[in-house]
Amino acid sequence: MTGEPPIVTLLTDFGAGSGYPAQMKAVLLSHLPGAQLVDLSHEVPRYDVLAGALLLEACAVRFPPRAVHLAVVDPGVGTARRPLGLVDRVGRRFVGPDNGLFTPFLEGGRAHHLAHPGLVPRPASRTFHGRDLFAPVAAFLAGGGAAAALGPPLDDPVRLPWPTARREGDLLHGECLWADHFGNVLTTIREEDLASSRPLAVAVEGQAARPVGTYGEGEQGELLALVGSSGRLEIAVREGSAAARLTALRGARVVVRLAP
Amino acid sequence: MTGEPPIVTLLTDFGAGSGYPAQMKAVLLSHLPGAQLVDLSHEVPRYDVLAGALLLEACAVRFPPRAVHLAVVDPGVGTARRPLGLVDRVGRRFVGPDNGLFTPFLEGGRAHHLAHPGLVPRPASRTFHGRDLFAPVAAFLAGGGAAAALGPPLDDPVRLPWPTARREGDLLHGECLWADHFGNVLTTIREEDLASSRPLAVAVEGQAARPVGTYGEGEQGELLALVGSSGRLEIAVREGSAAARLTALRGARVVVRLAP
Amino acid sequence: MTGEPPIVTLLTDFGAGSGYPAQMKAVLLSHLPGAQLVDLSHEVPRYDVLAGALLLEACAVRFPPRAVHLAVVDPGVGTARRPLGLVDRVGRRFVGPDNGLFTPFLEGGRAHHLAHPGLVPRPASRTFHGRDLFAPVAAFLAGGGAAAALGPPLDDPVRLPWPTARREGDLLHGECLWADHFGNVLTTIREEDLASSRPLAVAVEGQAARPVGTYGEGEQGELLALVGSSGRLEIAVREGSAAARLTALRGARVVVRLAP
Repeated sequence: MTGEPPIVTLLTDFGAGSGYPAQMKAVLLSHLPGAQLVDLSHEVPRYDVLAGALLLEACAVRFPPRAVHLAVVDPGVGTARRPLGLVDRVGRRFVGPDNGLFTPFLEGGRAHHLAHPGLVPRPASRTFHGRDLFAPVAAFLAGGGAAAALGPPLDDPVRLPWPTARREGDLLHGECLWADHFGNVLTTIREEDLASSRPLAVAVEGQAARPVGTYGEGEQGELLALVGSSGRLEIAVREGSAAARLTALRGARVVVRLAP
Repeated sequence: MTGEPPIVTLLTDFGAGSGYPAQMKAVLLSHLPGAQLVDLSHEVPRYDVLAGALLLEACAVRFPPRAVHLAVVDPGVGTARRPLGLVDRVGRRFVGPDNGLFTPFLEGGRAHHLAHPGLVPRPASRTFHGRDLFAPVAAFLAGGGAAAALGPPLDDPVRLPWPTARREGDLLHGECLWADHFGNVLTTIREEDLASSRPLAVAVEGQAARPVGTYGEGEQGELLALVGSSGRLEIAVREGSAAARLTALRGARVVVRLAP
Repeated sequence: MTGEPPIVTLLTDFGAGSGYPAQMKAVLLSHLPGAQLVDLSHEVPRYDVLAGALLLEACAVRFPPRAVHLAVVDPGVGTARRPLGLVDRVGRRFVGPDNGLFTPFLEGGRAHHLAHPGLVPRPASRTFHGRDLFAPVAAFLAGGGAAAALGPPLDDPVRLPWPTARREGDLLHGECLWADHFGNVLTTIREEDLASSRPLAVAVEGQAARPVGTYGEGEQGELLALVGSSGRLEIAVREGSAAARLTALRGARVVVRLAP
């Protein structure tokens, strides 16, 4: 694999234009000159750890194994929350706060408390963990450093209650999670929950959404339900915004009737 | 030219922070490890194929010939619209949907229907063409792959009606196209339409815009008309927004009086 | 340092999705194929030279010395304002308009008027300085070119009145400068102004802000004052926006009472 430059991805809620991601990149390039830096997103809704975890889940799995994923959505910065390094069950590496942001990758992985004296800056009010702690650690890992050197095992990493679907007879009960840029609404119902059968009927907040295979099957303005590229059931409106049709978003109830 | 890393540019209406551009980049870097990825824009107004085509026209011509331009503004995703690879008349390469997005580069070029079995993922509701089809093809071309291998020639690519100016005696009739971030409004009138003479008078939606050579000649707040860096007549307000002065934007009528 | 790719950073008020930064990158990569391009921000508030200077000050110092910083916030484009190349007192290099954007780096540095005939495009209304002048110069410097070749010394570069704090007995008087993406408000009061003592009391526009060491010490919703990662006194609300609490932003008065 020689000659393949290391990759570090960045996911934050800082805003791409805020200067904070740039400061993290400055540190990454200082430690690892040839690294390829890829922004996953800097527009995670502020302090929304679940939204960050869902976006990370959708993106990180697409990258080659040499990538290290540096993620910071951190409402608890400045409190006692622990800093984390993680190697997941298939070898993907993550660095960031231990606040549930890495929930989709914890099962079967090894987490380390970033506690090695050479890595951790001395406590100071002016420390920016993304730049001063997580970026150097991400560069260290992406440059070939061993995760075991980061600090002692962290056996009880914080896990978010992970939103899933619940089957009840012919019905699948789920929830809305998140709307993308187009107003397509992702739900907690995954392709595998549908048991390979197209849904017979879908309702969101009591409104009917017609089950289709692709966006193109919908009439303009019609509320549709389909499995999107994320592998999740999505509520969509062809060339329109499904999010704008709902009164709530996260937590709005979705019911799917499956063939009996 | 050995040692120059391949370049892939990306233009979409997905939103930079949506995670979708990041998924495309993950695939590009998986296929072509050393590639340089450059975002043209991910903020094309949603589903606005003409806006995407205009932005692509302004940017792609500035890149070195080794760049491959991956562009996805695709209201017809999931319908029968064809996927396209294009080599334009001077050798620039493009990948994306056949919906007119590449109109400025079609004349004299060779288009291919992306139909090679090894390239095209099997139809599935969960396919994300930008990631699963266009990104691998862009990586293939940027890595030195031959366009002829992509699939059979596509002889009737979709062309947008391309907005131009119309001369009538001393008058040039055009239209507004697009406003940039500063509120400068680009029009369908190009530098060459002006036949090397500065306009005597310009009117937009019936309002006078004073012809100037540069922004700096304007008074603060004054409506100005000048040929901008895009090579198009622009309507501008010094340190202000011309777009905010117009009731319509795309399609608003512009009339220029030239020296007789 | 062989093998370390050159770095060019970009800071503008153009908007990341406008296509203008992409055109600058196209020129940079045409002149310097292997360069690493890092966006500091393209979301500087429009024409706000001071905001650009503050963001540049916060970011540029973090980069390795081989980086060249290309910055364009340029309300005077098209007027007689001079184009500038700068080597600061520790060797950092900058390229952009001579309008005060580089004020934090002028002291002890050497500025050059970009006047070398081979560098400067002929005057034309359609010149985009960011793309046609500053980008080639930045590539030249990042590729190892000598600053002395850029043009004659420029001995009187434009300096912004630089906002600072003023001590009066036990009181420090400062001003608000800027709010980040989270609504944290940066002030003109720096860590060194506090003379290593935590403030006893802070008032912003007459509202009390409780001095704390980290965000985590605050109650939700409480107005806080702390030295942030920028090294400046910040006004913050834990998981909320301090900016939303103030009627003005830039120029709003801040008073700190220090231990006598």
